[in-house]
Amino acid sequence: MALDDRKQRFTYIGTTPDRPDGLDKVTGRARYGADAYAPGMLHGVIVRSPHAHARILKIDASKALALKGVKAVVTRADFPTGLTGEDWNLQENVMAGEKALYDGHAVAAVAATSQLIARDAAKLIEVDYEPLPHVTDVDAAMEPGAPVIREGVADYSVPEGMHPNVARRYEFGHGDIEAGFAAADEILEESYRTEATHQGYIEPHACLAQLGSDGKGELWCCTQGHWFVRRMCASVLGLETSQLRVTPSEIGGGFGGKTTVFIDPVALALSRKAGRPVKIVMSRSEVLRATGPTASASMDIRIGMKRNGTITAAQGTFRLQGGAFPGAPTPETMQCAFACYEIPAVYELGYDVITNRPKQAAYRAPGAPMGAFAAESAIDELCRRMNLDPLEVRLRNAVKEGSRSSYGPTFQRIGLVETLEAARAHPHYSAPLGPNQGRGVASGYWFNWGGETSVSMAVSEDGTVQVSVGTPDIGGSRASISLMAAEALGVPYENVRCNVVDTGALGVNEPTHGSRATYASGLATIEAAREIARKLCRRAADKWGIDPEAVVWEDGRARPSGPNAGQFPPMSIAEIAAEMGETGGPISGHFEATPNGHGPSFGTHIVDVEVDPETGRTTVLRYTVVQDAGKAIHPAYVEGQFQGGAAQGIGWALNEEYIYGANGRLQNPVFLDYRIPVASDLPMIDTVIVEVPNPGHPYGVRGVGETGITPPLPAIANAVAGAAGVRLRCLPMTPPRILAAIRSHG
Amino acid sequence: MALDDRKQRFTYIGTTPDRPDGLDKVTGRARYGADAYAPGMLHGVIVRSPHAHARILKIDASKALALKGVKAVVTRADFPTGLTGEDWNLQENVMAGEKALYDGHAVAAVAATSQLIARDAAKLIEVDYEPLPHVTDVDAAMEPGAPVIREGVADYSVPEGMHPNVARRYEFGHGDIEAGFAAADEILEESYRTEATHQGYIEPHACLAQLGSDGKGELWCCTQGHWFVRRMCASVLGLETSQLRVTPSEIGGGFGGKTTVFIDPVALALSRKAGRPVKIVMSRSEVLRATGPTASASMDIRIGMKRNGTITAAQGTFRLQGGAFPGAPTPETMQCAFACYEIPAVYELGYDVITNRPKQAAYRAPGAPMGAFAAESAIDELCRRMNLDPLEVRLRNAVKEGSRSSYGPTFQRIGLVETLEAARAHPHYSAPLGPNQGRGVASGYWFNWGGETSVSMAVSEDGTVQVSVGTPDIGGSRASISLMAAEALGVPYENVRCNVVDTGALGVNEPTHGSRATYASGLATIEAAREIARKLCRRAADKWGIDPEAVVWEDGRARPSGPNAGQFPPMSIAEIAAEMGETGGPISGHFEATPNGHGPSFGTHIVDVEVDPETGRTTVLRYTVVQDAGKAIHPAYVEGQFQGGAAQGIGWALNEEYIYGANGRLQNPVFLDYRIPVASDLPMIDTVIVEVPNPGHPYGVRGVGETGITPPLPAIANAVAGAAGVRLRCLPMTPPRILAAIRSHG
Repeated sequence: MALDDRKQRFTYIGTTPDRPDGLDKVTGRARYGADAYAPGMLHGVIVRSPHAHARILKIDASKALALKGVKAVVTRADFPTGLTGEDWNLQENVMAGEKALYDGHAVAAVAATSQLIARDAAKLIEVDYEPLPHVTDVDAAMEPGAPVIREGVADYSVPEGMHPNVARRYEFGHGDIEAGFAAADEILEESYRTEATHQGYIEPHACLAQLGSDGKGELWCCTQGHWFVRRMCASVLGLETSQLRVTPSEIGGGFGGKTTVFIDPVALALSRKAGRPVKIVMSRSEVLRATGPTASASMDIRIGMKRNGTITAAQGTFRLQGGAFPGAPTPETMQCAFACYEIPAVYELGYDVITNRPKQAAYRAPGAPMGAFAAESAIDELCRRMNLDPLEVRLRNAVKEGSRSSYGPTFQRIGLVETLEAARAHPHYSAPLGPNQGRGVASGYWFNWGGETSVSMAVSEDGTVQVSVGTPDIGGSRASISLMAAEALGVPYENVRCNVVDTGALGVNEPTHGSRATYASGLATIEAAREIARKLCRRAADKWGIDPEAVVWEDGRARPSGPNAGQFPPMSIAEIAAEMGETGGPISGHFEATPNGHGPSFGTHIVDVEVDPETGRTTVLRYTVVQDAGKAIHPAYVEGQFQGGAAQGIGWALNEEYIYGANGRLQNPVFLDYRIPVASDLPMIDTVIVEVPNPGHPYGVRGVGETGITPPLPAIANAVAGAAGVRLRCLPMTPPRILAAIRSHG
Repeated sequence: MALDDRKQRFTYIGTTPDRPDGLDKVTGRARYGADAYAPGMLHGVIVRSPHAHARILKIDASKALALKGVKAVVTRADFPTGLTGEDWNLQENVMAGEKALYDGHAVAAVAATSQLIARDAAKLIEVDYEPLPHVTDVDAAMEPGAPVIREGVADYSVPEGMHPNVARRYEFGHGDIEAGFAAADEILEESYRTEATHQGYIEPHACLAQLGSDGKGELWCCTQGHWFVRRMCASVLGLETSQLRVTPSEIGGGFGGKTTVFIDPVALALSRKAGRPVKIVMSRSEVLRATGPTASASMDIRIGMKRNGTITAAQGTFRLQGGAFPGAPTPETMQCAFACYEIPAVYELGYDVITNRPKQAAYRAPGAPMGAFAAESAIDELCRRMNLDPLEVRLRNAVKEGSRSSYGPTFQRIGLVETLEAARAHPHYSAPLGPNQGRGVASGYWFNWGGETSVSMAVSEDGTVQVSVGTPDIGGSRASISLMAAEALGVPYENVRCNVVDTGALGVNEPTHGSRATYASGLATIEAAREIARKLCRRAADKWGIDPEAVVWEDGRARPSGPNAGQFPPMSIAEIAAEMGETGGPISGHFEATPNGHGPSFGTHIVDVEVDPETGRTTVLRYTVVQDAGKAIHPAYVEGQFQGGAAQGIGWALNEEYIYGANGRLQNPVFLDYRIPVASDLPMIDTVIVEVPNPGHPYGVRGVGETGITPPLPAIANAVAGAAGVRLRCLPMTPPRILAAIRSHG
């Protein structure tokens, strides 16, 4: 359902053709990370710490190296020294130095002629550890007396006297916070907790690496962003970026978790040492133990509201742990928590805390779901307490064009109000509920992102067109980019091929992250297409012997205009392309920029649940996602993003969590125990695509990938509160937790 | 030895650093055509005709398809119909239709789970043939009564009454030819013959193909030009070019023979039918029987000369057979034959004749060696007869800037005179000769070529640079292009990486053929680098807050100039690159054109041979190549090209030939019987690099790859004439032929 399609008339945009990679993917021909192969390649296996925190006293690889078929062992000694800052953190995470910092931390790696031999060899590598006290909980890590994981991680922002595990402190706000609370009729003050969850991508990390002693290398890997991989591997290994050529495979999900490196530099180091290509494929338990889940959070919220629903003040303290390294998305949690509302007074405080856990990685709107869970649960609690309609309250406080956001910037044209109105008007919102059933609503926000972008586009001899992008296709971006190219050039969608090209073939690109691929690569595609259209007009003008300014590109054809209108028959792209070699050479268009007009996206979700009072089990009965897409280029894939975000949010809300034992080891590093929702756990997720054009994109596009995971956590908590009569402030809302809450509530 | 380096001063150009792909190639890590792999891939084998000419009555694949592991069989019925012109010829050559036209012509193909099964299955495919009369010799094919290979191949140029095997007739000339001969003091009239030879690349053709029923495909193959492959496969299979993405492997030689397709469309067709990737790797005998050797030629020459050595008239008739399809390089043979000389009257006639042989393909200066053999042998015969110095005679008649070429166009600045003078001054030319030894000289010409060219260049975050080119690196072009990029940007050679990228990543490029890679991709690289330098200056200007016009790029740094000179410290590319994301985005440069300033190249060779009068065996004692490179970007690889051309020419002159039996089958389709020179057959080949800058290239580059194969055939014949006292007018000059000539000479 398109709510705002008044601005532009489109031919291809808004249609839903098959994705270009569809056949390859459904027939199994698409090549994923583990499908890479090189003659003579070795298989690498990583030795991982069984301790949450331990000094590495000695690594003896002699027995492993004596095994037939073993070609190389690497440890941290095989990596360059002297790195600083984020480069050092990355190197330290990729391969432990003096200490293993979490269960699963890589401490050595071996390459052998088969994976079986490499696994045997890994067991023969003897590591002497001195176990150290550990801490894996964010609040415990801040307590006086908590084990110090690393000295010196704190920067200037952390006041003296705080525990050395606190790496960063953030603070912002505006307005008179106490006056705000004084003006409130009702104040709610509660604490909320979320556990770390994993992106749960289907495809484990995999790569094939080749690196020579001359510093030149190639890497094939499953990643969201191969330029990031290139830069990170170059940093960790001391290479020149241009000398490492990184080719992305197809990707079986990433959700932010594949925007950094884990195994890639290790495979390169093994390759350099062995003189052979080396392939590493992670197991699922390696993925869960040693890649980046999201942070866990502990949050205190205080919100004041007038009887009419006006929010007068909001305050939050957000403590996030992102593993043994700084970098938890505390700022994003803080900025997104109250971003949906125009609040006279806001004060927020945040901490980035290190623990003995794997280094967190981005996960779909990184940080935002935690803050939304706390803030949107708190608002719902107030609404229930004051008997106010939660959508009306949100509409009353909603940010709109010109609003000052809770974290500073002023919004341009945005669509929160439109999503709230669409939700209110949706039949779902007024449908009757049965016994033990409850309905929850929540809104959510994500910044979206532009980022460094390079796109090239070329005309082929038969007038078909190819687009070369640097953003791996995760959610259908080949289709959306092809549609924009078709629209901008006036050629059929089927005549366009969008290729994801390697780092050696294009300028720098940020990954497919920040909901940026369709926005930024799309914008660059449109600009490249316009350059091609100008060049096509020039070729036609040269042929006709008229001024290029007197030629317009319309409906895929060059037409003489003005005084020359009608004097020559229009020329199609195929006609011009057929002779381009002789009329000036190949025709291409290019665009490089860091576009910053990524419009933020808001969404509002409605969910009905039923809670079984006997077991505490929650069933999601009905789910509706309403979200602003700016302009839905390919509505079916926009819906897919909406649904995917909701599905992951449902898992986070109800089931998923990292469970660490007292020994500091991850207790559930397999999908049987780390339970993501499967199809039978979910209802069909309905969607409403709101279209409030983004003024920062030629076709009005806003990123749609991330916002959808922000509302589900609180929406489901709010629905559970209605269904079970108990408020859960700690995720996930597993049956035992709900049952305990029901029983303690009496 | 650089003879003309006055024009420009270079920092990197003219140095000889290691080639960037060197380590990969010497350690075996470089991936060639047969190294490609895809999960689930099948192996394809082609069934080939054992007849030189036969009607295909029936193909029964039922037994093959019944074999376990066989997944698909294709015949011509699996290719689209209705093609015309060159597309039809290509399709017909790739897979025979109604008739097999030569020994080795593909008639069916099978894909199976292993190559062994595929080979067994190929034997089970039953083909019923009706053998037809055949002809494999060019003169015989023109005789009345010769078997008609195909009706209707002749175009308008062929007069009525000629044999239907004559496909094309060419004629040109200038001046009063009879007056020219009348003015001569001596006239020579002789006939010359050359046999077909094969390029003899080390790496047989290999490809891995994947094609879906949706018309989208990928192909990895060993080729000189992947855009040509893309276009040809698309034509033969009825695909859109953009929907087929072709990635070139490293290439173990091509010499023109890998500018067309043989197995690639077959592998794609098998893949489409089987629904799996299909790999085909040719055997050596398949390469020799069924790829494109060069044409064989039968030529009549008439030359008139004054006593002082002035050539007064030249006439030639050139009959070439290029296999069962039109396309022999008759025009090139004709145009190059007398191209070294300014002759008042020229008349040339040429024929393109079809025979029952494989379709010829380009081979290093295609057509030129045959014409040079005839013309330069004839001139030498006249010199010997009239006791004139062959270099003086050539100098007297040599073309120079402003000369009208024998085939029409007027030469710009060229370097023939400089090569002749350098040869005359070379110690080799005046060294004493022993008994049974002779010295020959000859000059040669090649047009060189520009062609459609697209290059992109990108700056990486650390200020290193990559160049994306579409011309596969055969003779060191990664090095020469990196050197030009380094020179144009003022950055070290080691900071540049030149990547050969796939068709999906760049606009159209012609192959590495026509000696164009260093010329055209180099020119485009320099232009792309200059665009980058302009952008770097703009970033610096923005930072300094001054007019971009007031910034110059010098020695790899942006410097304020004019009134701002010295006001700001210069900024290096690394400094600007480090912040490019925030100062406007990624920095790239691009260039697309069809450059046509490829300067032609001339060379003069001196060779000493000794002929054993007992056995007729010729030993090459000393060989000196003098050739104009315009500007030698990487002199060591220029020398390599000179030496390689000479080596192949020596093989053609002395040993190599396609031997067809009376049954029309190739008798020597293995390297034991088709004898290319090996290292022990050759002396060290000396080189003199003459540098007469090409005005059509920013650094003066002329292509150097092809000219070097043109003089060896006549130079060796001329040396043999001196050593053995007999003139051989038929190549190759094998020991039996020389012995027979000595004996008949008496």
